[in-house]
Amino acid sequence: MKEEIGAKNYLSPLPVTLVGANVGGKPNYIAIAFVGAVDYSHVSISSARNHYTNAGIRENGTFSVNIPGTDLVKETDYCGMVSGKDTDKSAVFETFYGELKTAPMIAECPVNLECRVVQTLEMKIHEVFIGEIVKTYCNEEVLENGGVDFAKVDPILFVIYGKDYWSFGRPFARGWNVGKELMR
Amino acid sequence: MKEEIGAKNYLSPLPVTLVGANVGGKPNYIAIAFVGAVDYSHVSISSARNHYTNAGIRENGTFSVNIPGTDLVKETDYCGMVSGKDTDKSAVFETFYGELKTAPMIAECPVNLECRVVQTLEMKIHEVFIGEIVKTYCNEEVLENGGVDFAKVDPILFVIYGKDYWSFGRPFARGWNVGKELMR
Repeated sequence: MKEEIGAKNYLSPLPVTLVGANVGGKPNYIAIAFVGAVDYSHVSISSARNHYTNAGIRENGTFSVNIPGTDLVKETDYCGMVSGKDTDKSAVFETFYGELKTAPMIAECPVNLECRVVQTLEMKIHEVFIGEIVKTYCNEEVLENGGVDFAKVDPILFVIYGKDYWSFGRPFARGWNVGKELMR
Repeated sequence: MKEEIGAKNYLSPLPVTLVGANVGGKPNYIAIAFVGAVDYSHVSISSARNHYTNAGIRENGTFSVNIPGTDLVKETDYCGMVSGKDTDKSAVFETFYGELKTAPMIAECPVNLECRVVQTLEMKIHEVFIGEIVKTYCNEEVLENGGVDFAKVDPILFVIYGKDYWSFGRPFARGWNVGKELMR
Protein backbone atom coordinates (compact mmCIF):
# COMPACT_ATOMS: atom_id res chain seq x y z
CA MET A 1 0.00 0.00 0.00
CA LYS A 2 1.55 3.31 -1.16
CA GLU A 3 1.33 6.46 0.92
CA GLU A 4 1.76 9.92 -0.57
CA ILE A 5 4.07 11.97 1.64
CA GLY A 6 4.22 15.32 -0.13
CA ALA A 7 7.20 16.16 -2.34
CA LYS A 8 10.04 15.14 -0.08
CA ASN A 9 13.59 14.54 -1.23
CA TYR A 10 14.28 11.08 0.15
CA LEU A 11 17.24 10.41 -2.13
CA SER A 12 19.15 8.81 0.70
CA PRO A 13 21.48 7.88 2.18
CA LEU A 14 24.22 10.22 0.99
CA PRO A 15 27.78 10.59 2.23
CA VAL A 16 28.51 13.40 4.65
CA THR A 17 31.36 15.40 3.15
CA LEU A 18 33.44 18.31 4.32
CA VAL A 19 33.61 20.91 1.60
CA GLY A 20 36.67 23.12 1.77
CA ALA A 21 37.16 26.61 0.35
CA ASN A 22 39.49 29.49 0.99
CA VAL A 23 37.54 32.51 2.19
CA GLY A 24 39.59 35.67 2.27
CA GLY A 25 42.71 33.53 1.90
CA LYS A 26 41.92 31.31 4.90
CA PRO A 27 40.69 27.70 4.82
CA ASN A 28 37.12 27.04 5.85
CA TYR A 29 35.20 23.76 6.01
CA ILE A 30 31.49 23.03 5.99
CA ALA A 31 29.63 19.72 6.36
CA ILE A 32 27.49 18.98 3.31
CA ALA A 33 25.45 15.91 2.39
CA PHE A 34 23.59 17.52 -0.52
CA VAL A 35 26.10 16.11 -2.98
CA GLY A 36 26.08 14.06 -6.14
CA ALA A 37 28.14 12.25 -8.72
CA VAL A 38 27.69 13.83 -12.13
CA ASP A 39 30.03 11.57 -14.08
CA TYR A 40 33.47 10.00 -13.64
CA SER A 41 35.14 13.40 -13.54
CA HIS A 42 32.55 15.73 -12.00
CA VAL A 43 30.70 16.10 -8.71
CA SER A 44 28.00 18.46 -7.50
CA ILE A 45 27.77 20.08 -4.11
CA SER A 46 24.85 22.18 -3.00
CA SER A 47 25.09 24.88 -0.36
CA ALA A 48 22.65 27.62 0.62
CA ARG A 49 23.69 30.82 -1.15
CA ASN A 50 24.24 32.83 2.03
CA HIS A 51 26.77 30.37 3.48
CA TYR A 52 30.23 31.71 4.20
CA THR A 53 31.80 28.90 2.14
CA ASN A 54 29.93 29.92 -1.01
CA ALA A 55 31.65 33.29 -1.11
CA GLY A 56 35.03 31.54 -1.13
CA ILE A 57 34.02 29.13 -3.88
CA ARG A 58 32.80 32.04 -5.99
CA GLU A 59 35.97 34.01 -5.23
CA ASN A 60 38.41 31.28 -6.28
CA GLY A 61 36.36 29.05 -8.56
CA THR A 62 37.72 26.09 -6.62
CA PHE A 63 36.70 23.85 -3.72
CA SER A 64 37.49 20.47 -2.23
CA VAL A 65 35.33 17.55 -1.21
CA ASN A 66 36.78 15.63 1.74
CA ILE A 67 35.34 12.33 2.96
CA PRO A 68 35.64 11.99 6.73
CA GLY A 69 35.64 8.66 8.53
CA THR A 70 33.40 8.01 11.54
CA ASP A 71 36.34 8.89 13.81
CA LEU A 72 35.88 12.51 12.66
CA VAL A 73 32.16 12.70 13.41
CA LYS A 74 32.53 15.33 16.15
CA GLU A 75 34.64 17.62 13.99
CA THR A 76 32.32 17.06 11.03
CA ASP A 77 29.21 17.87 13.04
CA TYR A 78 30.93 20.93 14.47
CA CYS A 79 31.74 22.20 10.96
CA GLY A 80 28.06 21.80 10.09
CA MET A 81 26.88 23.74 13.13
CA VAL A 82 29.10 26.80 13.27
CA SER A 83 29.54 29.32 10.48
CA GLY A 84 32.87 30.67 9.31
CA LYS A 85 31.23 34.09 9.62
CA ASP A 86 31.49 33.84 13.40
CA THR A 87 34.08 31.17 14.01
CA ASP A 88 37.50 30.54 12.54
CA LYS A 89 37.45 26.86 11.54
CA SER A 90 40.88 26.92 9.88
CA ALA A 91 42.56 25.05 12.75
CA VAL A 92 40.01 22.26 13.21
CA PHE A 93 41.99 20.13 10.77
CA GLU A 94 45.44 20.07 9.24
CA THR A 95 45.12 21.69 5.81
CA PHE A 96 47.06 20.85 2.69
CA TYR A 97 46.86 22.31 -0.81
CA GLY A 98 47.27 20.66 -4.19
CA GLU A 99 47.53 21.67 -7.79
CA LEU A 100 44.95 24.45 -7.71
CA LYS A 101 46.59 26.16 -4.71
CA THR A 102 43.27 27.65 -3.49
CA ALA A 103 41.25 24.55 -2.57
CA PRO A 104 42.16 23.63 1.01
CA MET A 105 41.99 19.92 1.81
CA ILE A 106 41.87 18.01 5.06
CA ALA A 107 44.84 15.80 5.89
CA GLU A 108 42.82 13.73 8.40
CA CYS A 109 40.15 12.79 5.83
CA PRO A 110 41.07 9.57 4.02
CA VAL A 111 39.79 10.78 0.62
CA ASN A 112 40.08 14.26 -0.91
CA LEU A 113 38.77 15.54 -4.24
CA GLU A 114 40.31 18.77 -5.52
CA CYS A 115 37.81 20.53 -7.77
CA ARG A 116 37.52 23.42 -10.21
CA VAL A 117 34.05 24.95 -10.70
CA VAL A 118 32.85 24.45 -14.27
CA GLN A 119 29.20 25.42 -13.82
CA THR A 120 26.90 26.86 -11.16
CA LEU A 121 23.17 26.19 -10.92
CA GLU A 122 21.07 28.77 -9.16
CA MET A 123 18.25 27.18 -7.18
CA LYS A 124 15.84 29.04 -4.95
CA ILE A 125 17.99 28.93 -1.80
CA HIS A 126 20.95 26.80 -2.83
CA GLU A 127 23.84 27.28 -5.18
CA VAL A 128 24.92 24.06 -6.86
CA PHE A 129 28.56 24.00 -7.82
CA ILE A 130 29.52 21.48 -10.49
CA GLY A 131 33.17 20.70 -9.95
CA GLU A 132 35.61 19.06 -12.28
CA ILE A 133 37.88 16.80 -10.27
CA VAL A 134 41.42 17.94 -10.97
CA LYS A 135 43.16 15.54 -8.63
CA THR A 136 42.23 12.93 -6.05
CA TYR A 137 44.23 12.20 -2.92
CA CYS A 138 43.90 9.47 -0.36
CA ASN A 139 45.63 8.19 2.72
CA GLU A 140 47.83 5.24 1.84
CA GLU A 141 46.19 3.06 4.50
CA VAL A 142 42.86 3.06 2.58
CA LEU A 143 44.46 2.01 -0.72
CA GLU A 144 43.82 -1.56 -1.77
CA ASN A 145 45.01 -2.84 -5.15
CA GLY A 146 45.22 0.69 -6.51
CA GLY A 147 41.66 1.58 -5.52
CA VAL A 148 40.11 3.04 -2.39
CA ASP A 149 38.65 0.51 0.05
CA PHE A 150 35.58 2.17 1.56
CA ALA A 151 35.39 -0.33 4.39
CA LYS A 152 38.65 1.27 5.53
CA VAL A 153 37.42 4.81 4.78
CA ASP A 154 34.48 4.07 7.11
CA PRO A 155 32.38 7.00 5.79
CA ILE A 156 29.59 8.83 7.61
CA LEU A 157 26.18 8.59 5.96
CA PHE A 158 23.12 10.76 6.27
CA VAL A 159 19.43 10.42 5.56
CA ILE A 160 17.82 13.69 4.43
CA TYR A 161 15.36 15.01 7.08
CA GLY A 162 17.08 12.79 9.64
CA LYS A 163 19.13 13.78 12.66
CA ASP A 164 21.41 10.76 12.88
CA TYR A 165 24.76 9.94 11.39
CA TRP A 166 24.82 6.39 10.06
CA SER A 167 27.65 3.98 9.45
CA PHE A 168 28.34 2.13 6.21
CA GLY A 169 27.46 -1.55 5.88
CA ARG A 170 29.19 -4.41 4.14
CA PRO A 171 29.35 -5.93 0.66
CA PHE A 172 26.53 -8.44 0.22
CA ALA A 173 26.24 -9.04 -3.53
CA ARG A 174 28.32 -8.73 -6.66
CA GLY A 175 27.34 -6.17 -9.30
CA TRP A 176 27.05 -7.10 -12.99
CA ASN A 177 26.65 -10.61 -11.67
CA VAL A 178 23.87 -11.28 -9.18
CA GLY A 179 21.20 -10.32 -11.74
CA LYS A 180 22.47 -12.76 -14.37
CA GLU A 181 20.03 -15.44 -13.31
CA LEU A 182 17.18 -13.22 -14.50
CA MET A 183 18.65 -13.17 -18.03
CA ARG A 184 16.77 -15.63 -20.14
CA MET B 1 50.89 10.10 4.03
CA LYS B 2 48.80 11.24 1.03
CA GLU B 3 48.86 9.40 -2.26
CA GLU B 4 47.80 11.02 -5.53
CA ILE B 5 45.54 8.65 -7.43
CA GLY B 6 44.73 10.58 -10.60
CA ALA B 7 41.43 12.42 -10.90
CA LYS B 8 39.05 9.75 -9.72
CA ASN B 9 35.49 10.38 -8.60
CA TYR B 10 35.43 8.73 -5.20
CA LEU B 11 32.32 10.55 -3.98
CA SER B 12 31.01 7.39 -2.38
CA PRO B 13 29.00 5.57 -1.29
CA LEU B 14 25.86 6.53 -3.18
CA PRO B 15 22.47 4.85 -3.20
CA VAL B 16 21.67 2.53 -6.09
CA THR B 17 18.43 3.75 -7.59
CA LEU B 18 16.15 2.49 -10.31
CA VAL B 19 15.29 5.32 -12.65
CA GLY B 20 12.01 4.89 -14.47
CA ALA B 21 10.90 6.43 -17.75
CA ASN B 22 8.32 5.66 -20.37
CA VAL B 23 9.98 4.93 -23.68
CA GLY B 24 7.55 4.74 -26.57
CA GLY B 25 4.73 4.59 -24.03
CA LYS B 26 6.16 1.60 -22.17
CA PRO B 27 7.83 1.61 -18.74
CA ASN B 28 11.55 1.03 -18.61
CA TYR B 29 13.89 0.93 -15.61
CA ILE B 30 17.64 1.38 -15.35
CA ALA B 31 19.94 1.06 -12.32
CA ILE B 32 21.77 4.32 -11.63
CA ALA B 33 24.06 5.31 -8.76
CA PHE B 34 25.34 8.54 -10.37
CA VAL B 35 22.74 10.55 -8.48
CA GLY B 36 22.66 13.56 -6.23
CA ALA B 37 20.55 15.73 -3.97
CA VAL B 38 20.36 19.27 -5.33
CA ASP B 39 18.12 20.75 -2.65
CA TYR B 40 15.01 19.76 -0.71
CA SER B 41 12.92 19.65 -3.89
CA HIS B 42 15.35 18.61 -6.63
CA VAL B 43 17.52 15.62 -7.47
CA SER B 44 20.01 14.91 -10.23
CA ILE B 45 20.43 11.68 -12.12
CA SER B 46 23.17 11.09 -14.63
CA SER B 47 22.92 8.63 -17.47
CA ALA B 48 25.07 8.12 -20.58
CA ARG B 49 23.41 9.93 -23.48
CA ASN B 50 22.98 6.83 -25.64
CA HIS B 51 21.00 4.92 -23.01
CA TYR B 52 17.49 3.82 -23.95
CA THR B 53 16.07 5.49 -20.82
CA ASN B 54 17.39 8.93 -21.82
CA ALA B 55 15.23 8.99 -24.95
CA GLY B 56 12.15 8.46 -22.78
CA ILE B 57 13.12 11.18 -20.33
CA ARG B 58 13.69 13.61 -23.20
CA GLU B 59 10.40 12.54 -24.82
CA ASN B 60 8.23 13.10 -21.72
CA GLY B 61 10.26 15.49 -19.60
CA THR B 62 9.56 13.21 -16.65
CA PHE B 63 11.22 10.36 -14.77
CA SER B 64 11.08 8.57 -11.45
CA VAL B 65 13.71 7.66 -8.90
CA ASN B 66 12.91 4.45 -7.05
CA ILE B 67 14.91 3.24 -4.04
CA PRO B 68 15.12 -0.55 -3.96
CA GLY B 69 15.77 -2.54 -0.81
CA THR B 70 18.42 -5.24 -0.67
CA ASP B 71 15.69 -7.84 -1.35
CA LEU B 72 15.54 -6.43 -4.90
CA VAL B 73 19.26 -6.66 -5.61
CA LYS B 74 18.89 -9.26 -8.37
CA GLU B 75 16.24 -7.28 -10.21
CA THR B 76 18.24 -4.07 -9.72
CA ASP B 77 21.43 -5.59 -11.06
CA TYR B 78 19.51 -7.06 -13.98
CA CYS B 79 18.12 -3.61 -14.87
CA GLY B 80 21.68 -2.29 -14.87
CA MET B 81 22.96 -5.03 -17.16
CA VAL B 82 20.39 -5.30 -19.93
CA SER B 83 19.27 -2.42 -22.14
CA GLY B 84 15.67 -1.62 -22.99
CA LYS B 85 16.87 -1.51 -26.59
CA ASP B 86 17.11 -5.30 -26.62
CA THR B 87 15.00 -6.41 -23.69
CA ASP B 88 11.53 -5.43 -22.53
CA LYS B 89 11.96 -4.66 -18.81
CA SER B 90 8.36 -3.47 -18.32
CA ALA B 91 7.31 -6.66 -16.49
CA VAL B 92 10.25 -6.93 -14.08
CA PHE B 93 8.28 -4.90 -11.54
CA GLU B 94 4.71 -3.85 -10.94
CA THR B 95 4.39 -0.31 -12.32
CA PHE B 96 2.21 2.48 -11.01
CA TYR B 97 1.78 6.05 -12.21
CA GLY B 98 1.18 9.25 -10.26
CA GLU B 99 0.34 12.83 -10.97
CA LEU B 100 2.53 13.26 -14.04
CA LYS B 101 1.06 10.16 -15.77
CA THR B 102 4.28 9.50 -17.73
CA ALA B 103 6.79 8.68 -14.99
CA PRO B 104 6.47 4.96 -14.24
CA MET B 105 7.21 3.97 -10.64
CA ILE B 106 7.98 0.63 -9.03
CA ALA B 107 5.45 -0.70 -6.54
CA GLU B 108 8.01 -3.04 -4.93
CA CYS B 109 10.45 -0.20 -4.13
CA PRO B 110 9.76 1.27 -0.70
CA VAL B 111 10.44 4.88 -1.79
CA ASN B 112 9.51 6.56 -5.08
CA LEU B 113 10.21 10.10 -6.26
CA GLU B 114 8.11 11.36 -9.16
CA CYS B 115 10.06 14.02 -11.05
CA ARG B 116 9.69 16.64 -13.76
CA VAL B 117 12.83 17.67 -15.66
CA VAL B 118 13.64 21.33 -15.05
CA GLN B 119 17.15 21.41 -16.48
CA THR B 120 19.55 19.17 -18.41
CA LEU B 121 23.32 19.39 -18.21
CA GLU B 122 25.28 18.09 -21.16
CA MET B 123 28.48 16.41 -20.09
CA LYS B 124 30.90 14.62 -22.40
CA ILE B 125 29.18 11.22 -22.27
CA HIS B 126 26.43 11.72 -19.71
CA GLU B 127 23.23 13.70 -19.66
CA VAL B 128 22.39 15.02 -16.21
CA PHE B 129 18.70 15.49 -15.63
CA ILE B 130 17.76 17.85 -12.81
CA GLY B 131 14.34 16.79 -11.62
CA GLU B 132 11.87 18.68 -9.51
CA ILE B 133 10.18 16.26 -7.14
CA VAL B 134 6.46 16.57 -7.78
CA LYS B 135 5.37 13.87 -5.38
CA THR B 136 6.94 11.29 -3.11
CA TYR B 137 5.45 7.89 -2.37
CA CYS B 138 6.44 5.23 0.10
CA ASN B 139 5.29 1.88 1.33
CA GLU B 140 3.40 2.27 4.58
CA GLU B 141 5.64 -0.26 6.35
CA VAL B 142 8.68 2.07 6.08
CA LEU B 143 6.86 5.06 7.56
CA GLU B 144 7.81 5.98 11.11
CA ASN B 145 6.40 9.09 12.77
CA GLY B 146 5.56 10.60 9.40
CA GLY B 147 9.09 10.16 8.01
CA VAL B 148 10.79 7.36 6.13
CA ASP B 149 12.83 4.96 8.28
CA PHE B 150 15.83 3.99 6.15
CA ALA B 151 16.67 1.06 8.38
CA LYS B 152 13.41 -0.41 7.10
CA VAL B 153 14.05 0.72 3.51
CA ASP B 154 17.34 -1.24 3.69
CA PRO B 155 18.86 0.51 0.65
CA ILE B 156 21.57 -0.82 -1.64
CA LEU B 157 24.76 1.25 -1.69
CA PHE B 158 27.51 1.50 -4.24
CA VAL B 159 31.12 2.66 -4.32
CA ILE B 160 32.12 4.17 -7.66
CA TYR B 161 34.69 1.96 -9.47
CA GLY B 162 33.62 -0.94 -7.26
CA LYS B 163 31.85 -4.12 -8.22
CA ASP B 164 30.02 -4.81 -4.97
CA TYR B 165 26.64 -3.85 -3.63
CA TRP B 166 26.89 -2.76 -0.01
CA SER B 167 24.36 -2.66 2.78
CA PHE B 168 23.52 0.33 4.94
CA GLY B 169 24.84 0.57 8.49
CA ARG B 170 23.30 1.88 11.66
CA PRO B 171 22.91 5.22 13.45
CA PHE B 172 25.96 5.87 15.63
CA ALA B 173 25.85 9.58 16.47
CA ARG B 174 23.38 12.43 16.65
CA GLY B 175 23.69 15.33 14.20
CA TRP B 176 23.64 18.97 15.38
CA ASN B 177 24.66 17.52 18.68
CA VAL B 178 27.79 15.36 18.81
CA GLY B 179 29.97 18.30 17.73
CA LYS B 180 28.73 20.57 20.51
CA GLU B 181 31.62 19.69 22.78
CA LEU B 182 33.98 21.39 20.32
CA MET B 183 32.12 24.67 20.73
CA ARG B 184 34.03 26.87 23.09
